[in-house]
Amino acid sequence: MNFSSDNWAGASPKVSAALERIGGGYNPAYGNDDRTQRVSDWFCEIFEREVAVFFVGTGSAANSLALAAMMRPGGLVFCHRQSHINVDECGAPEFFTGGGKLVPLPGAAGKLDAATLARALGRFDPPSVHSGRPVAVSITQSTEAGTVYTPAEIRAIADVAHGAGLQLHMDGARFANALASLNVAAADITWRAGVDVLSFGATKNGCWCAEAVVFFDRSEVGDFEYLRKRSGQLFSKSAFVAAQFEGYFEQGHWLDNAVHANHMAERIGRVVAETPGARLAFPVEANEVFAIWPKETTARLKAAGASFYVWPGDSLADGEGPGADEDMVRLVTSYATRLAEVAAFIDVLQRLRV
Amino acid sequence: MNFSSDNWAGASPKVSAALERIGGGYNPAYGNDDRTQRVSDWFCEIFEREVAVFFVGTGSAANSLALAAMMRPGGLVFCHRQSHINVDECGAPEFFTGGGKLVPLPGAAGKLDAATLARALGRFDPPSVHSGRPVAVSITQSTEAGTVYTPAEIRAIADVAHGAGLQLHMDGARFANALASLNVAAADITWRAGVDVLSFGATKNGCWCAEAVVFFDRSEVGDFEYLRKRSGQLFSKSAFVAAQFEGYFEQGHWLDNAVHANHMAERIGRVVAETPGARLAFPVEANEVFAIWPKETTARLKAAGASFYVWPGDSLADGEGPGADEDMVRLVTSYATRLAEVAAFIDVLQRLRV
Amino acid sequence: MNFSSDNWAGASPKVSAALERIGGGYNPAYGNDDRTQRVSDWFCEIFEREVAVFFVGTGSAANSLALAAMMRPGGLVFCHRQSHINVDECGAPEFFTGGGKLVPLPGAAGKLDAATLARALGRFDPPSVHSGRPVAVSITQSTEAGTVYTPAEIRAIADVAHGAGLQLHMDGARFANALASLNVAAADITWRAGVDVLSFGATKNGCWCAEAVVFFDRSEVGDFEYLRKRSGQLFSKSAFVAAQFEGYFEQGHWLDNAVHANHMAERIGRVVAETPGARLAFPVEANEVFAIWPKETTARLKAAGASFYVWPGDSLADGEGPGADEDMVRLVTSYATRLAEVAAFIDVLQRLRV
Amino acid sequence: MNFSSDNWAGASPKVSAALERIGGGYNPAYGNDDRTQRVSDWFCEIFEREVAVFFVGTGSAANSLALAAMMRPGGLVFCHRQSHINVDECGAPEFFTGGGKLVPLPGAAGKLDAATLARALGRFDPPSVHSGRPVAVSITQSTEAGTVYTPAEIRAIADVAHGAGLQLHMDGARFANALASLNVAAADITWRAGVDVLSFGATKNGCWCAEAVVFFDRSEVGDFEYLRKRSGQLFSKSAFVAAQFEGYFEQGHWLDNAVHANHMAERIGRVVAETPGARLAFPVEANEVFAIWPKETTARLKAAGASFYVWPGDSLADGEGPGADEDMVRLVTSYATRLAEVAAFIDVLQRLRV
Repeated sequence: MNFSSDNWAGASPKVSAALERIGGGYNPAYGNDDRTQRVSDWFCEIFEREVAVFFVGTGSAANSLALAAMMRPGGLVFCHRQSHINVDECGAPEFFTGGGKLVPLPGAAGKLDAATLARALGRFDPPSVHSGRPVAVSITQSTEAGTVYTPAEIRAIADVAHGAGLQLHMDGARFANALASLNVAAADITWRAGVDVLSFGATKNGCWCAEAVVFFDRSEVGDFEYLRKRSGQLFSKSAFVAAQFEGYFEQGHWLDNAVHANHMAERIGRVVAETPGARLAFPVEANEVFAIWPKETTARLKAAGASFYVWPGDSLADGEGPGADEDMVRLVTSYATRLAEVAAFIDVLQRLRV
Repeated sequence: MNFSSDNWAGASPKVSAALERIGGGYNPAYGNDDRTQRVSDWFCEIFEREVAVFFVGTGSAANSLALAAMMRPGGLVFCHRQSHINVDECGAPEFFTGGGKLVPLPGAAGKLDAATLARALGRFDPPSVHSGRPVAVSITQSTEAGTVYTPAEIRAIADVAHGAGLQLHMDGARFANALASLNVAAADITWRAGVDVLSFGATKNGCWCAEAVVFFDRSEVGDFEYLRKRSGQLFSKSAFVAAQFEGYFEQGHWLDNAVHANHMAERIGRVVAETPGARLAFPVEANEVFAIWPKETTARLKAAGASFYVWPGDSLADGEGPGADEDMVRLVTSYATRLAEVAAFIDVLQRLRV
Repeated sequence: MNFSSDNWAGASPKVSAALERIGGGYNPAYGNDDRTQRVSDWFCEIFEREVAVFFVGTGSAANSLALAAMMRPGGLVFCHRQSHINVDECGAPEFFTGGGKLVPLPGAAGKLDAATLARALGRFDPPSVHSGRPVAVSITQSTEAGTVYTPAEIRAIADVAHGAGLQLHMDGARFANALASLNVAAADITWRAGVDVLSFGATKNGCWCAEAVVFFDRSEVGDFEYLRKRSGQLFSKSAFVAAQFEGYFEQGHWLDNAVHANHMAERIGRVVAETPGARLAFPVEANEVFAIWPKETTARLKAAGASFYVWPGDSLADGEGPGADEDMVRLVTSYATRLAEVAAFIDVLQRLRV
Repeated sequence: MNFSSDNWAGASPKVSAALERIGGGYNPAYGNDDRTQRVSDWFCEIFEREVAVFFVGTGSAANSLALAAMMRPGGLVFCHRQSHINVDECGAPEFFTGGGKLVPLPGAAGKLDAATLARALGRFDPPSVHSGRPVAVSITQSTEAGTVYTPAEIRAIADVAHGAGLQLHMDGARFANALASLNVAAADITWRAGVDVLSFGATKNGCWCAEAVVFFDRSEVGDFEYLRKRSGQLFSKSAFVAAQFEGYFEQGHWLDNAVHANHMAERIGRVVAETPGARLAFPVEANEVFAIWPKETTARLKAAGASFYVWPGDSLADGEGPGADEDMVRLVTSYATRLAEVAAFIDVLQRLRV
């Protein structure tokens, strides 16, 4: 009953096999190998467009480098106040951008909305050297609240951003889960909806270490290769990332993984919603369940062997947070979550009802 | 006949197997797993001392983070003018240290010497706010010239550094090769000789992606965890690095790999030295051979299928660089270099003699 | 009727005279002159304590360097969401601190309060490498809303900050105005109330360019001289700043200037409060008046020759901001504000009443 | 007999008077005043071209910001190894540029030469993500050795720089001295010779605090205003810098000051050259004299009341440095140097001869 995080799972079998397959042998270093080229082509196919792909080591690096590529002196990046870049990356975006500033905004269910963004941008029009200048907006898909932006919601945000001369970044640490949830084309929630640069995460969904920054307009790549190298994110044996992506993309493996994880979360979510005294903090739309329930429920589940995190209640922009005797908890599923684990968890939960 | 770089080789069989072995299953993220603890203990055993070990993604990151841990505002790091940190990391040390400055020094055969260092430090005594202040010395073992510092040479440098209040960093991207060459204990060329922090590289010698920063005095770790996290170098599925190190250390596998690579280089070096018109630019002491020979020799070897790089002649501090019709070339061997490749290469070279 | 800003005024006569007085002649550069020493002693006298004083060029530099001195990797600085460091310094604090992060907090009337701070800090206990770590709190005295912290309010904030291991910085761009308002000793609102480092501003209150960073505990100075030098804030002819401070401190000139400015603001504030349709957004406690009135009032005053800025309404944390047909405006007085200007302004305002 | 530095002198009478003149009164802050506009026009006149002018607080800031404007990730700036930016600014260029790297080059008499530069750039052609990429060249006029680049020498350097896609920066901390020495138009040693951006220093030559960054092509200004603001270099009462420049430029005052300083240096230089046992380390071409003489001479001159610095002998690229019993000393003259001081100094020196 391990629902601590999707990054507690190892590599899924197909990814592991792909890595094993390349084993030894020579590959030109630093991404100049054929496999990397093939994987890049695969990205183009998936996104139905010529894209530029850069492998990096972690999701934080992907996000921070993407923002660094958009940064200018005195630059401001608008994001949800609970976004990973704002609260979980130890200041990496600020560090990589040489002191760029994040402007945190509120938003229901972990989502930024176009109206709030427009209002915030209004403060910077006309621009002033004192206040700094907006350069980018960053959203997370699926969000830190386990919710998912629809194509239309992304489009609305993109329109506000572009209208003010800003670029739109998407943190896709759980991109596959969003895609599986919406059941649309990858292009529909990225460039077709106005996203300029995507952090494409594969680690949480079945790889060991496979993250990529995807530019949807190759002419926007600019200095990215230098940004990546000087931050120590250019792997010499870069082929090992390419190999993971091969396994990940093969026969839709990545979407299978995400569909499974989402399905497991949905099951748990349904039971939480029906459990007296418990409620869902946010709709369950991807592979995360945020439940609010009595502290005693937390204790009993842990005693029964379940592993998960109590989450800070101030993640909720609105007033419906946990009461004094309640916890908000986060339950995360992944490709590795077994139906039996979910069933066991549900069973404990249901027995608490009585 | 691939002598382009030791980072062109994939993962050695034992490393690959170890990675395959852990496969799926849950591991607490971010290095909080048992395997990481076991590997850390292994490091302590190897270095015969309580050390603090931090995994990172690349050698550049290891070096830059180690220097960042030593940095202070206006800080200066003294290094060989041909050191990797000075010429091959795209300014990563300057970036990670928030603008720390490298002071490049000359030195024969890729090695910094204590006297040159002492002279350079003299300029900063007494210290002045204008000139900045020395904070660290960095040396590479084995060096970028394929040579190796003896314990006594390291000790002499450490004494000058410590005497001036500086810390000593060692870039050990090819640490195993140096160790195999000297046939001493790992402690003898690190903390026993005065090294404070080591970039321990395993990638070039058989791993996919396994680099570590090793502090020999745990009380010097300071803010390192935060430095690592905010630079996007803390892997969520950190266990995959630990697994590689397990395979790497098992039954002395890492030293076997290095002994083999060194031996292959030695063979090539011996023949180069005997080839009329060719000469060795530096003594062959690890797994790199720097040869100077006619440009035509380069052409013929490449035509015969050999892969290697022509190297900038100004790597030589002294006057004995390549002449107008000559190249300096670098030939690198690795765990993956087969005796047959070496033999074939030597064969071509010997036939050129006639 | 110039109420645009206190930094629109030139140098007050005594400051000008002091600068004129030193004129030519030789002074050791970079602050090694006797005058700088005398001014430093004067600071010690004013603060009734051995302090360390460093001149810098601007208030933004003073704030940013003070925070840089407190910064650590992944560090967080808590401040009011409308604080100058957060909204008016173009990311200077982030730049000087190498990517330190400001955490903006709400607070009535431009003031941070201890309870809000304590709540915000709770999120970081226990600390985690992901969320970064609190290192400092920064408050502004007098605030950006023209209000003033009492010694007890500062003490309460300091206790929360120190209790969590944080340092307390005070942005004293208008320190003299606060002091004149409270009529207490300088020590009472600084170190005696728990402030660790003060940005002591003199420019707005009668100097050309005289700002200082004051450490109340000399042992906390650390690397400050290097931080200042490498940010281009160490003046070669530093004596010109010392001279200004001499004129500024002479016979209580600085407090006279502040008393006058506050008095002028008070007069305007009183009339605004009595004007039908107009109201004060914040209590008038120093040299700034924030008024909310019909947009038409703004237009009429400007037509009558008054100079001032319309201020963003979202400066108000609470709901009482300007309505759709209203403006919030900022009126700033200074040492240079003449009673006649104020009278003329009041006259126009009162005639609008009818 | 004060020859310590040209920054030991205060403000020259005309500058002081101009500053006194503006005194109080209102000026729009942050450089939006008429006086700043007039001074900018004056710069255009002096340089016979539309230029963009930005005031900053120190020479280090001017240089560092100019280089920051040229910087790109992984960027390299080529400069003389003894240049102020490389050895006397505490890493400010590296800090302002977010970790840009200076590549120090040798050169006789403090001057970079085009051939050395071309050779150094050769190493970076073709460019590689590992080595970083050249973005700019920086030269100092007059140099740190008190010598002066001719227009032709600058042109040659500019051609090499521009040919490789680099910009050319000139550190003009002593620009007036170079101009007075060469007796050419300001344009002849700047944009007409290929300089792109100039740090125009006035502080050493008679101001308190008046430095400017001058862009010769306004379209190259880019983000400079933001770079300046976020580094705390935008003065609120910026008019006080403008006032100094007014006094400085009035009736050629600045050139008069420089002519005088150069003349004083020339006199000292002539006597040094004729003094047995003493010699000039570099030709005296501006307002600095570098003499090599017995340590005893240093002692006697100091005993007689002369003030000057012993200079590090390794400032000399070539072998003619001071011997074991010798000092190299630096004697600097300024607008404030009186003929009587020079005569007294020469007198002591000549009496030592006997």
